[in-house]
Amino acid sequence: MPQHHITVIDTLIQTISRLPGLGPRSARRIVLHLLQKKDVVMQPLMEQLGAVAEQVQPCKICGNLDVLDPCSVCSNPSRDHSTICVVEDVSDLWAVERMGMYRGVYHVLGGVLSAIDGVTPEQLRIPALVERTKDGTVLEIIMATSATADGQTTAHYITDQLDTTRLKITRLAQGIPIGSELDYIDDNTLSAALQARLSI
Amino acid sequence: MPQHHITVIDTLIQTISRLPGLGPRSARRIVLHLLQKKDVVMQPLMEQLGAVAEQVQPCKICGNLDVLDPCSVCSNPSRDHSTICVVEDVSDLWAVERMGMYRGVYHVLGGVLSAIDGVTPEQLRIPALVERTKDGTVLEIIMATSATADGQTTAHYITDQLDTTRLKITRLAQGIPIGSELDYIDDNTLSAALQARLSI
Repeated sequence: MPQHHITVIDTLIQTISRLPGLGPRSARRIVLHLLQKKDVVMQPLMEQLGAVAEQVQPCKICGNLDVLDPCSVCSNPSRDHSTICVVEDVSDLWAVERMGMYRGVYHVLGGVLSAIDGVTPEQLRIPALVERTKDGTVLEIIMATSATADGQTTAHYITDQLDTTRLKITRLAQGIPIGSELDYIDDNTLSAALQARLSI
Repeated sequence: MPQHHITVIDTLIQTISRLPGLGPRSARRIVLHLLQKKDVVMQPLMEQLGAVAEQVQPCKICGNLDVLDPCSVCSNPSRDHSTICVVEDVSDLWAVERMGMYRGVYHVLGGVLSAIDGVTPEQLRIPALVERTKDGTVLEIIMATSATADGQTTAHYITDQLDTTRLKITRLAQGIPIGSELDYIDDNTLSAALQARLSI
């Protein structure tokens, strides 16, 4: 008997199961949900995917993903273009934007330097960042790479490439996350927070 | 400044975050993943969604979702058409099919009777099941509804509607799941398994 009918649903389940955070079980639930709500869920989802696929692209200046290029942050005259927050990924940029307090602009690296994964500075838009700092507009670079070994290595490498006589280079404070109990904090964080203690 | 650019990505994130098992955080990760892999993930996903939306429909006989109607199970002459396994949902049908041991056909109810949710027999394709048993082909009905109060009520209600003088009506065995430790079994299951004990 023809087995083609299995392929079209199964292929979709397989594709969805490979999305981040999903597996075969959750993919099956999602596909079934889509099939049972074709008009109210599946159709809008397809249209929205199409709109995003067509309209969203990386910003030439900072690497953000947006329907505008330059992106809405880079093209916003009320943002502070003298401060660049350097992040690893667009998800980090979105996290800082959600917080709603930062008024500067961004530079998305697209990853971190990694000897193991063979990631070089050229793959990370580091030259583009260096270039952006040369016309005199930029005064401060905030290194918001991850608090991991690779993230910190990347921040140090970038600092070495920049004109530190003219640019102020800062990094995010490290310490105890607000609202957390000391009990649950890992030793490295606790020791870093202790060493960086402030008088009150 | 124009905020339209936020809408198209945010709308997609919102739609995806409402899929079963997902939330805003996982939806953001998925959308970012799609945007970063437009050609190898997003494009195939859109094509596969389109194919499934266009080709898959409920089977007129059993309620399964398939590209064929009657579905691949109902139209398969090598299946045993004298045995109908009654399940609540297409996901249950898929689960039994994955097991790979069942050779009969199915009837998908589309839910369970529920006084609280106001679900009546007519909404559940129960009349269609009764109709299917009338031409003399069907010999056995296996009640594979959930081992919940509503699932069992539904099975009893259906049994009352069927011609039990002519049809053999069975249900799935209840007891200790294979491989589980007694320690972790709930009291109801343990007591049911004890009452249904078999000589060895």
